[in-house]
Amino acid sequence: MSETLVRAGIVGGTGYSGGELLRLLLTHPRCKIQAVSSRSRAGEPVSGLFGNLRDRIDLDFVSPRLSLLQDCDLVFFATPNGTAMNMAEALLAAGVRVIDLSADFRLHDQQIWQQWYGMEHACPALLSEAVYGLPEINRAQICDARLVANPGCYPTAVQLGFLPLLEAEVVSPDALIADAKSGLSGAGRKAETNLLYSEIDGNFAAYHVDGHRHLPEITQGMQFAAGQPVALTFVPHLVPMVRGIHATLYGRLLKEDVDLYELYRRRFIDEPFVDVLPPGHHVETRTVRGSNYCRLAVFRPQGRDTVVVLSVIDNLIKGAAGQAVQNMNIMFGLEETMGLGAVPMLP
Amino acid sequence: MSETLVRAGIVGGTGYSGGELLRLLLTHPRCKIQAVSSRSRAGEPVSGLFGNLRDRIDLDFVSPRLSLLQDCDLVFFATPNGTAMNMAEALLAAGVRVIDLSADFRLHDQQIWQQWYGMEHACPALLSEAVYGLPEINRAQICDARLVANPGCYPTAVQLGFLPLLEAEVVSPDALIADAKSGLSGAGRKAETNLLYSEIDGNFAAYHVDGHRHLPEITQGMQFAAGQPVALTFVPHLVPMVRGIHATLYGRLLKEDVDLYELYRRRFIDEPFVDVLPPGHHVETRTVRGSNYCRLAVFRPQGRDTVVVLSVIDNLIKGAAGQAVQNMNIMFGLEETMGLGAVPMLP
Amino acid sequence: MSETLVRAGIVGGTGYSGGELLRLLLTHPRCKIQAVSSRSRAGEPVSGLFGNLRDRIDLDFVSPRLSLLQDCDLVFFATPNGTAMNMAEALLAAGVRVIDLSADFRLHDQQIWQQWYGMEHACPALLSEAVYGLPEINRAQICDARLVANPGCYPTAVQLGFLPLLEAEVVSPDALIADAKSGLSGAGRKAETNLLYSEIDGNFAAYHVDGHRHLPEITQGMQFAAGQPVALTFVPHLVPMVRGIHATLYGRLLKEDVDLYELYRRRFIDEPFVDVLPPGHHVETRTVRGSNYCRLAVFRPQGRDTVVVLSVIDNLIKGAAGQAVQNMNIMFGLEETMGLGAVPMLP
Amino acid sequence: MSETLVRAGIVGGTGYSGGELLRLLLTHPRCKIQAVSSRSRAGEPVSGLFGNLRDRIDLDFVSPRLSLLQDCDLVFFATPNGTAMNMAEALLAAGVRVIDLSADFRLHDQQIWQQWYGMEHACPALLSEAVYGLPEINRAQICDARLVANPGCYPTAVQLGFLPLLEAEVVSPDALIADAKSGLSGAGRKAETNLLYSEIDGNFAAYHVDGHRHLPEITQGMQFAAGQPVALTFVPHLVPMVRGIHATLYGRLLKEDVDLYELYRRRFIDEPFVDVLPPGHHVETRTVRGSNYCRLAVFRPQGRDTVVVLSVIDNLIKGAAGQAVQNMNIMFGLEETMGLGAVPMLP
Repeated sequence: MSETLVRAGIVGGTGYSGGELLRLLLTHPRCKIQAVSSRSRAGEPVSGLFGNLRDRIDLDFVSPRLSLLQDCDLVFFATPNGTAMNMAEALLAAGVRVIDLSADFRLHDQQIWQQWYGMEHACPALLSEAVYGLPEINRAQICDARLVANPGCYPTAVQLGFLPLLEAEVVSPDALIADAKSGLSGAGRKAETNLLYSEIDGNFAAYHVDGHRHLPEITQGMQFAAGQPVALTFVPHLVPMVRGIHATLYGRLLKEDVDLYELYRRRFIDEPFVDVLPPGHHVETRTVRGSNYCRLAVFRPQGRDTVVVLSVIDNLIKGAAGQAVQNMNIMFGLEETMGLGAVPMLP
Repeated sequence: MSETLVRAGIVGGTGYSGGELLRLLLTHPRCKIQAVSSRSRAGEPVSGLFGNLRDRIDLDFVSPRLSLLQDCDLVFFATPNGTAMNMAEALLAAGVRVIDLSADFRLHDQQIWQQWYGMEHACPALLSEAVYGLPEINRAQICDARLVANPGCYPTAVQLGFLPLLEAEVVSPDALIADAKSGLSGAGRKAETNLLYSEIDGNFAAYHVDGHRHLPEITQGMQFAAGQPVALTFVPHLVPMVRGIHATLYGRLLKEDVDLYELYRRRFIDEPFVDVLPPGHHVETRTVRGSNYCRLAVFRPQGRDTVVVLSVIDNLIKGAAGQAVQNMNIMFGLEETMGLGAVPMLP
Repeated sequence: MSETLVRAGIVGGTGYSGGELLRLLLTHPRCKIQAVSSRSRAGEPVSGLFGNLRDRIDLDFVSPRLSLLQDCDLVFFATPNGTAMNMAEALLAAGVRVIDLSADFRLHDQQIWQQWYGMEHACPALLSEAVYGLPEINRAQICDARLVANPGCYPTAVQLGFLPLLEAEVVSPDALIADAKSGLSGAGRKAETNLLYSEIDGNFAAYHVDGHRHLPEITQGMQFAAGQPVALTFVPHLVPMVRGIHATLYGRLLKEDVDLYELYRRRFIDEPFVDVLPPGHHVETRTVRGSNYCRLAVFRPQGRDTVVVLSVIDNLIKGAAGQAVQNMNIMFGLEETMGLGAVPMLP
Repeated sequence: MSETLVRAGIVGGTGYSGGELLRLLLTHPRCKIQAVSSRSRAGEPVSGLFGNLRDRIDLDFVSPRLSLLQDCDLVFFATPNGTAMNMAEALLAAGVRVIDLSADFRLHDQQIWQQWYGMEHACPALLSEAVYGLPEINRAQICDARLVANPGCYPTAVQLGFLPLLEAEVVSPDALIADAKSGLSGAGRKAETNLLYSEIDGNFAAYHVDGHRHLPEITQGMQFAAGQPVALTFVPHLVPMVRGIHATLYGRLLKEDVDLYELYRRRFIDEPFVDVLPPGHHVETRTVRGSNYCRLAVFRPQGRDTVVVLSVIDNLIKGAAGQAVQNMNIMFGLEETMGLGAVPMLP
């Protein structure tokens, strides 16, 4: 019996998304980790940086050389923004498919990308080919994609939460609010003073209220779903916890007689990773921790015209590495849930 | 030289608000703690329950008897809802002034109170006399009040944040949103499974989205400030931290040409405990921890018509015990900031 | 091909150990969860109490009736102490094997048990039959056991850490110290004030320094390993985190020329779940989180005669549910690591 | 009436010790903060880095120039190790007294200092003059000291805990163990990956088991107290919390008939900041948070010959800035508790 075995490379395997990808792929039955690269740590054992992987992986980090990566069927980029756009073209040319967990290929519009990311885009030609890897919207295109732009963490939580409302045109598109809260792992493994334990613990704060890079990505996706322009106010906050995003979404209802729970239930009934809670129940980030689930709940407080949607994901899984594996499964004709069966860890 | 010395009693001194009141009053130069009551712990040393007070207080808890409390100039109620309303009348009759940190006297409308608090009000006659103890609005009335209803924690953060917008009539009163996040001490010192460390740590969730008891209190205050009805959607969340509230407030601007920072700065320029941050700065709960400050920041993201206000307080201080001390100072003609000079503790 | 399928019942499925057992068994390829009992929640869906299990388990809690449990091949007790001892005999008589995660059958000596647990033992006859389920010591006896006493969390971490030293007789048995630190999930899901988030967060403290119930269990195991009496000082502490135990162990070396690392490496070389770190490396609780690993490191500071051993486990897995599954695998002739392959979750 | 006013300078005011010193001195009635220096942030407002100080301090950071500092009566060094030793001599020569919160002057032996701190000592001449600023031992010498070496955080907790045992010669000096646990603020405000929130939260680990820099400092102090050599095994650990040290100390009793509680009570009866708990009570770090207290408890588990002492401090206060203020008060003839009256903050 012939079984697909995906030989995968990971470029930039030292951060939290890279580590999570390693963790997921190590137990994936149809994927073999071919190489994990890190410029700064080439030659060091991967398990030196990820003590949790001791006894589970024997690889050393390698330099991200094309010669080595072109033996892969698939290369994941878990790099800072600005790296994948310099390497993707050559990999594709060598027949290697690419899933980019960074933001390099998420926006279709080069100008908007450059404005928000503050650099020249090195590979604008691929912006239109890249498929935005949110399976709940783009499953069909992901199947055949050579290059998948894996969505950001906030964009995943916010888009999945707003999707049914926008598709069904039951909310006004010009007054949407996403009040989003993220655990710290979303900020990455960078040595920055403002990410220190002593700065974060016991503290809660909003940041980038004037404009966060995920805003244009979310807006692009929401406009696609709505089929018209949307105006979104997006306020991200940091929560003193490691994993999890909780997005609290607000919209103004245009129709009185919508059964909101039914709208959500039906929209996601065939989605393996989206779970809509029964009316009156609240989502919690811990009920998705360690899993690829997005859980949603929808409310209409005091029966007024404001709808409130609660959306939670594990930012490192459905918001990064898990969604990347889901995309890999789709691209390579594997069962979509393969390797993603972990039950969320509570407590 | 004649100096006021306020002899104070605390009814219900075993919870977090009561403990914080003790902590603040112990270093207040013009207040003497006469008695601290607890039905369940009468006879036990106060410092047995509050290990932080060892070496600082010698009192034992006593039963809350009127004979004892009527020797006080002032009695604070730091009790669960439903206690103060049974004792306030007798104390006032004995010439004792009262500051109630519970919700018993916060709403003017008996019916609404009974609907949200699920019990008969035992003392509706005092509802109209009670002064809502938010000094930034009611300073003059607090001076002469016999009975002050100390505001709730969320209501303090939300009202102070919306006040300038409502008073100046620059936002639409029918589409206001308060997305509020609180540390766990706001939930009190009750032995409930869902407040356990292992349930809360690493978790973020909204609760009571359908309607929280602080909603009518906030709405009442906002309508007073606006001079007209307001429609507020209020969504509270629990943050895995002990102290602090962060309210993120959203309104729709009615006027284009408002200098929002100036509006806020001028409104609070004489307020000793309200600090408006310069444009572009974000508030953080840790910068008010252990203090009576409320810090505010105001944004207008992407220059659109949605205004975003960030408001932080220490829920146990400006949101409870500190505001109670501030009210005491006003009632007894003391310097308003007396005993409230602690510098916030960071980290 | 005939494959074993273990039909398992869980008595007392509402606490953290029970929940973790559910989580592990749901992905175990050779185990079917037949019934999960809870007296207080009979009739309620299991996923109502464990939001992480939504979409993964359809069972309701049932009352713990013998008629129902005797259809199982194996019953796990995840109950408070004092329950299993009342039900084990009947289950064994019905041919059902039992793994007790509580302390009821851990001590061989009835008097000592009664002294530490403060109740009459209801089933002393089984104390000598029960096998202490630490596979690294008792693997052979576990194979055939009808009744396995699953070790406590502290006892697992402490015994595995001291084992090589005691077996090789390189430390003085009369001056051993175990300074142990545990996350809060070890304290269970009981509604107690002193386990509230606001009591625990940001706080560190020792408890039961005068004597903790795990002391006689540890001593019994260590004496068995040493073949002579041992004197252990055991000081447990609570760490503000959910999962993990870190035991720091101290002994006085009797021999000068021992290669401590080699001693540990060789002792555990065939153990699938015990990982000895290379000299100079420190263990961390996060590198075992969510897994059945115990990781060990051994030091001899300043080359003096005091040996320091560091031992970490996830208290809910190797310290409870994971070890129970490991024991089940051994008892039923399954691969010992089956269902326990999760890679630790970091961060 | 003549009242001392200490004009104080702070060199290195950007870290946690410096910030805490600012926080304490801002409410000290007899101290005026003359200058706060930071090479990297000269010209920036102090309250920009310490958001908690907004509205309380108007100073900008300045460059640490001698010309400016010599106008002070006292200069605190809250700098990394290696800075104070280059500036102290000139300040003393200018008649300015110095309290060094770094480790530069804590060890009398230059060779040992150089070995542990990995650099040449720039000012060995002052090593013998410097007074070790632990008031509970050296109060008299601190009075007249020109240069005070403020003790480290671990050394403060460990020495105060062992002191009565050593002075009374009731424990064997050759087998002492200090198992110490610290909150993260003790590690400073450095941008290091291993101090990130996501690395620390939910994790517990020992570090530097082979030898921590505080070991020689503790040993030096303990030998002084014991009047003979001592052998100490010191194992530090990081606790996922911001403030607090908990030292668990072990010694072997030489005498049977010592009343340990009385020994401790009498030793510290006149000490304003050392609180000995009654027998059977455990200390907690939260009961000293935000205060200059050290609380101690002493146990003799199972009545055997091992004594266990529990010692807690707030590492930033009694372990750093608070002890520095205490030393300042002693040096300048002020009430020793002045400015240190804050009641610990719980929760």
